[in-house]
Amino acid sequence: MQNTSPFPENSVGLVKSQSLRVDTAIKLQCGQNLSHYDLAYETYGTLNDSKSNAVLICHALSGNQHAAGYHHVDDKRPGWWDLCIGPGKAIDTNHLFVVCPNNIGGCHGSVGPTTLNIETSHPYGPDFPIVTVKDWVHSQAQLADHFDILQWAAVVGGSLGGMQALQWAIDLPHRIRHALVIASAPKLSAQNIAFNEIARQAIMSDPDFHNGHYYGERSYPKRGLILARMLGHVTYLSDHAMRLKFGRELKKGHLSFDYDAEFQVESYLRYQGEIFSENFDANTYLLMTKALDYFDPAAEYNGNLVGAVSQALCKFMVISFTTDWRFAPNRSEEIVNALLQAKKTVSYAKIDAPQGHDSFLLDIPRYKNLFSAYMANIILEANKLNQEKRNAS
Amino acid sequence: MQNTSPFPENSVGLVKSQSLRVDTAIKLQCGQNLSHYDLAYETYGTLNDSKSNAVLICHALSGNQHAAGYHHVDDKRPGWWDLCIGPGKAIDTNHLFVVCPNNIGGCHGSVGPTTLNIETSHPYGPDFPIVTVKDWVHSQAQLADHFDILQWAAVVGGSLGGMQALQWAIDLPHRIRHALVIASAPKLSAQNIAFNEIARQAIMSDPDFHNGHYYGERSYPKRGLILARMLGHVTYLSDHAMRLKFGRELKKGHLSFDYDAEFQVESYLRYQGEIFSENFDANTYLLMTKALDYFDPAAEYNGNLVGAVSQALCKFMVISFTTDWRFAPNRSEEIVNALLQAKKTVSYAKIDAPQGHDSFLLDIPRYKNLFSAYMANIILEANKLNQEKRNAS
Repeated sequence: MQNTSPFPENSVGLVKSQSLRVDTAIKLQCGQNLSHYDLAYETYGTLNDSKSNAVLICHALSGNQHAAGYHHVDDKRPGWWDLCIGPGKAIDTNHLFVVCPNNIGGCHGSVGPTTLNIETSHPYGPDFPIVTVKDWVHSQAQLADHFDILQWAAVVGGSLGGMQALQWAIDLPHRIRHALVIASAPKLSAQNIAFNEIARQAIMSDPDFHNGHYYGERSYPKRGLILARMLGHVTYLSDHAMRLKFGRELKKGHLSFDYDAEFQVESYLRYQGEIFSENFDANTYLLMTKALDYFDPAAEYNGNLVGAVSQALCKFMVISFTTDWRFAPNRSEEIVNALLQAKKTVSYAKIDAPQGHDSFLLDIPRYKNLFSAYMANIILEANKLNQEKRNAS
Repeated sequence: MQNTSPFPENSVGLVKSQSLRVDTAIKLQCGQNLSHYDLAYETYGTLNDSKSNAVLICHALSGNQHAAGYHHVDDKRPGWWDLCIGPGKAIDTNHLFVVCPNNIGGCHGSVGPTTLNIETSHPYGPDFPIVTVKDWVHSQAQLADHFDILQWAAVVGGSLGGMQALQWAIDLPHRIRHALVIASAPKLSAQNIAFNEIARQAIMSDPDFHNGHYYGERSYPKRGLILARMLGHVTYLSDHAMRLKFGRELKKGHLSFDYDAEFQVESYLRYQGEIFSENFDANTYLLMTKALDYFDPAAEYNGNLVGAVSQALCKFMVISFTTDWRFAPNRSEEIVNALLQAKKTVSYAKIDAPQGHDSFLLDIPRYKNLFSAYMANIILEANKLNQEKRNAS
């Protein structure tokens, strides 16, 4: 059969963001309440009868609900994790029902700083409350309820997404069978916080930030966002990857002795920062970095990570990448060691990859194979549960 | 004998910056000329009869000529390398004559962006030409000429200072007996350049930068300088050092859920950035980062570092620090390997230290001992040369 679709055969194809209005108030960790809120999300694949095949995808700092497929036939790039989500891919939409929300505080349709605050008739802006990974988990549970999903077959995420998977396992242990925690950490290091703080200062010290109330202004903190993204970008790549990608290649082939972009790496970072600044909200960027800083599931258990993960009932897959210096393998191993001490079932893979933190988004055969193999067992389990339910009814 | 000085006994005590007017034009690597220029410098110790005991200290990105001692009796802090320069210290001023200039392009008395350009009656600002490590070496040679020093007993520097020591050995091989290259690299990596570029963009995108012509304005790019310094600071410290120093300690002891400095590391970086921004010139910061980016002594030898260092006639001491991720030990080892291939005499020490790149400025016993031992031989050599000269005359 010929593929008449404009998309690759293993793509989920054309997809549409949807929105769930949640009318149950949420009390946020910061103490504030949201009486009701919208959650933007996408789904791929089909939920089975017993609802045993649902997978929740949690996005990272700059992610959103568009994890796979295309919004338009002329889209050049698919969703951010299309490499791993689709028919026959690691998260196989031939067998799994995949749900990916935009986190609250986001800027892609879920309630966040750009949302109109009906109390003031202005966008929330900087008045949007600080949100945490715990808050996200509890708001994501509303999506599960919406679909009558009692238990996710798996909650999966990389980086800040992995933190959400870990928090799910701890906070709502009955509602998750597997947590896949990829390129993540049990909490940020002082260095991680420092980089976040510099990004925040870049945004907040931009005169166009207007203390966060820039929506009514003619300008927005574009310069600050560009700097924040450039800095983030460097921490996502390994020194080795940058060497391979750029080395000391000159943009014009010769030294210019001026402040134009002299080396390839400079123009690349400037360009990437520019693109990002046109597609992301500065207040959301601040919120996401704060959520990272605050993540520390052990804190509620007297700083004892073993105590925290002892709450979990699910099985775990933890994956790290050798050249990731943002969340290095030893940070993943802190999670693995705590899980082992708590006598949980955990698979751990440290993938030899030169690409740094970004590896979790990239086409690395060993990573994809391991990921796929682990997910294949989840599919078998989901199918078995579905069969049992059918037999019982 | 009682120490009646207000300074520690092993301090060079009260010192004063001096200035040398150079009337020999310098043709810079960028193609531009400086027909004459001032070089600010300090000296410590006494030059011996044969001028065999002179040591040149080269400063790094944010350094200056004030390497040791105090400018005022009420100074709280001595010069930036006081730990290593003074009576009985590694660079022992009881035996050595130490010269430390402010590099051209600097902002502490040598010609630079803040200098009045007599052609325009305005400070040079952004019109000050791009300077390179090679340019610095050649301008520093004017200082040697001024003191009739035919050959430095040693040229010593850390980080960007180490690059100058290496370039001295290559460009003016007859004028240097030892090069001490500490916490340095033979050229920047793409990641190094990326961090520099972000710092530059922080400064240049600050509206108060006024394209570099901010001297006549009521404001200067303070925000950009703060960001640049905060970012630099993170790269000077190891992840481990930051963990030890700050961990995740909260500034107020509890989470505030706002954008005030929440963790100790945030307020520390903000404070350090603030101090720096009041004491350094933004145009100079740009120039110094460019000098780093452009440093690549192998480039003149078809990219062959062995070919470059083959020019050298001096002996080398190369020192790296295990947790330095700005210029990691393997970068120093590139220099060492090239020197060995070129059959040069090189001592190499990789010092086990948790403090990261900043280690070269810190009180690390093994580092100080090795440094002192190497310098002690230089003193013996200098004394021997002096004795030979005396006997001959």
